[in-house]
Amino acid sequence: MTQIQQARLGKITEEMRQVASNERVDANWLREEVALGRIIIPKNVNHNIVARGIGNGLKTKVNANIGTSELHCNVQEELEKLDMALKYDVDSVMDLSTCGNLNEIRKLIINRSPVMVGTVPIYAVMSRLIEQNCGFSAMTAEMLFDEIENQAEMGVDFMTLHCGVTRRSLEFLDNDPRIIGVVSRGGSLLKRWMINNSRENPLFEQYDRVLDICEKYDVTISLGDGIRPGAGADATDRGQLAELLVLGELTERALKRGVQVLVEGPGHIPLDEIEMNVRLMKKICSNAPFYVLGPLCTDIAPGYDHIVGAIGGALAASFGADFLCYVTPAEHLCLPDVDDVKSGVIASKIAAHSADIVKGIKGASERDLAISRARRELNWAEIYNNSIDPEYARKRKESSASAGKNVCTMCGHLCAVKTDSNLD
Amino acid sequence: MTQIQQARLGKITEEMRQVASNERVDANWLREEVALGRIIIPKNVNHNIVARGIGNGLKTKVNANIGTSELHCNVQEELEKLDMALKYDVDSVMDLSTCGNLNEIRKLIINRSPVMVGTVPIYAVMSRLIEQNCGFSAMTAEMLFDEIENQAEMGVDFMTLHCGVTRRSLEFLDNDPRIIGVVSRGGSLLKRWMINNSRENPLFEQYDRVLDICEKYDVTISLGDGIRPGAGADATDRGQLAELLVLGELTERALKRGVQVLVEGPGHIPLDEIEMNVRLMKKICSNAPFYVLGPLCTDIAPGYDHIVGAIGGALAASFGADFLCYVTPAEHLCLPDVDDVKSGVIASKIAAHSADIVKGIKGASERDLAISRARRELNWAEIYNNSIDPEYARKRKESSASAGKNVCTMCGHLCAVKTDSNLD
Repeated sequence: MTQIQQARLGKITEEMRQVASNERVDANWLREEVALGRIIIPKNVNHNIVARGIGNGLKTKVNANIGTSELHCNVQEELEKLDMALKYDVDSVMDLSTCGNLNEIRKLIINRSPVMVGTVPIYAVMSRLIEQNCGFSAMTAEMLFDEIENQAEMGVDFMTLHCGVTRRSLEFLDNDPRIIGVVSRGGSLLKRWMINNSRENPLFEQYDRVLDICEKYDVTISLGDGIRPGAGADATDRGQLAELLVLGELTERALKRGVQVLVEGPGHIPLDEIEMNVRLMKKICSNAPFYVLGPLCTDIAPGYDHIVGAIGGALAASFGADFLCYVTPAEHLCLPDVDDVKSGVIASKIAAHSADIVKGIKGASERDLAISRARRELNWAEIYNNSIDPEYARKRKESSASAGKNVCTMCGHLCAVKTDSNLD
Repeated sequence: MTQIQQARLGKITEEMRQVASNERVDANWLREEVALGRIIIPKNVNHNIVARGIGNGLKTKVNANIGTSELHCNVQEELEKLDMALKYDVDSVMDLSTCGNLNEIRKLIINRSPVMVGTVPIYAVMSRLIEQNCGFSAMTAEMLFDEIENQAEMGVDFMTLHCGVTRRSLEFLDNDPRIIGVVSRGGSLLKRWMINNSRENPLFEQYDRVLDICEKYDVTISLGDGIRPGAGADATDRGQLAELLVLGELTERALKRGVQVLVEGPGHIPLDEIEMNVRLMKKICSNAPFYVLGPLCTDIAPGYDHIVGAIGGALAASFGADFLCYVTPAEHLCLPDVDDVKSGVIASKIAAHSADIVKGIKGASERDLAISRARRELNWAEIYNNSIDPEYARKRKESSASAGKNVCTMCGHLCAVKTDSNLD
């Protein structure tokens, strides 16, 4: 049985207990939220991890994307990225590999990861077709469902499935042209397949098969936003909203069935449309947990999109987004390297934490308070200990001319804390 | 005559023309805004620079702090920081030097800088006292006013003067204790001086002398927030607001006199108090331009405070803040180095630009559009050209395995743009 189904029967599962304890919330309240689908606990029955919850009233979670690609295929490096993401306390990783022995890589990542693992099954199907020198159009619905089942059996905790890319959604897109069309890989592949085969999206048409598989393994469906905008200028357009309406219906169907569901959102959104996007999604999708990709509030900063994503992510989370997909400095330029993963996770964790402070998340301000108090006392060890990256904070201070001193090289004898405390 | 005085006489100065042309706004409208004090053009009569405006309806501006300190005193390095800040298109620099031959350093910076230069005159006075082995209490009002006049004559365009640190403001602070008291260097020095000498703040008591000097050289007063909070937990408290009320009165007095004025604001503010802080300041201070220091929406990220500052700065600017003081990765740890300056300027420029898109600033979205169009065409040269750091964006893409290819190593053959455009 899925977590929702058990919650509805009044059962507080071991997973719910773990989440309640980790988040310091009441287990029975948590159970009710799970039953309503406002909190999810993505954990495949075949994946042995400590459960984490995502959604209403819980800490904002952060995901890191890793995985090989055709032009950069090094499994060892992807495992190093996993380790780096874990070091900075990521809540989940998505294996987006598209090159190499994909089953093998996925197995390695699932086995090594103590946090939930997500995937986008259509990537594996399409990568295989390309390897066999077939075009995308050669995909069959069977291939796609077989792959979903294969990955579910392997222990994948949540899967991005672009079920809302329908012929009707795409019509809205055609009638309201964009600067840059479909930027979701899964979305563009499905669109191309649908056009070339004059067919409806099988993930939509046969959504009950999706639900069958996800129910069986308690895989959380991450309803992908295949028609998300890829430019600020395209944000919140009819194509995006048409897909959102479909995602709303599919969320409801998943919840009725007792399948855990998460909804993905943009993408590229100007600052003044972020609140609206979050509230709209929550309204249309039964208050299911919301997973945002960024969002990016400007397009001019390739090389620094982790900062852009942190701005958008902090705002989105403060208005209710529950899960942030990290953005690394490499976004829009190349596959991230290990350092990019670190930068991306830290930027997203800063965004998530900044939002948690104002979301009223239990204990969210405790580290802030500890650092502020330590600053008052010029207690550097305590500042480092409570920092998001203690190693780096210590290194900067200790490699400056103030190493071992209680003040820093910024103010020296004009240290405001010393002056204000009348120390010297 | 100051820019305000000339504006009130109906004169469109050369400086107003430069600003109007650069911002693509009507020169007469600009003149009216200057007359009302809602736009300032900080430019000392003795400083030969192309004028930039700050305030209502203009692009959000960014300032970089540079300057020597007791524990890290290398003038050449400070000039390199200036050059680095200029390379990334900073709008002003503040010379916060507190070590070495301060007049000499200031002259070097003023002469080399094509953008406005700001200072905090009390630093020079206090540094000299320390050099002479005197305590801070030995300062006299004459020393402070002499230094202000000295720096005004040298060509400083705007000066931070903590005129609102009054005995009454400090009483509110005493009655509403903070986690971390006064974190402004100038604020803490004045507070200590006032307590030790049982005197009122001379910058408040003899504010007319401040106005006399600033009027003479058309120096813009940057009303410092000496009692700004230094921790999220201390944000928007009575001490801060008591000072703001005084700044409101002093803004009005400056405007009556025809002296240009800018108001400084926090500091450390949780995400959900940023809008209120900006609107409150604008309301209380006659809609004068607002200069925010960050703001920082969490305290847990020393080493990454440029990202925290970008989140807060983007939000503040989107609600009407006009001028962002950069925050570098070195903040709270050490004096920034040249790389930190680059990171700080870029992060703040991203924040300012993200806000300008939604503030309705003329032409703000043009670069975003150019990049989005170039992405659709996989036109990398055009993407780099419109990027905030073309060098770095190019380097990342071209040093990856996709060098010379039209796709990147992220997606390779699964490139959504190619798939969506049905290219190959």
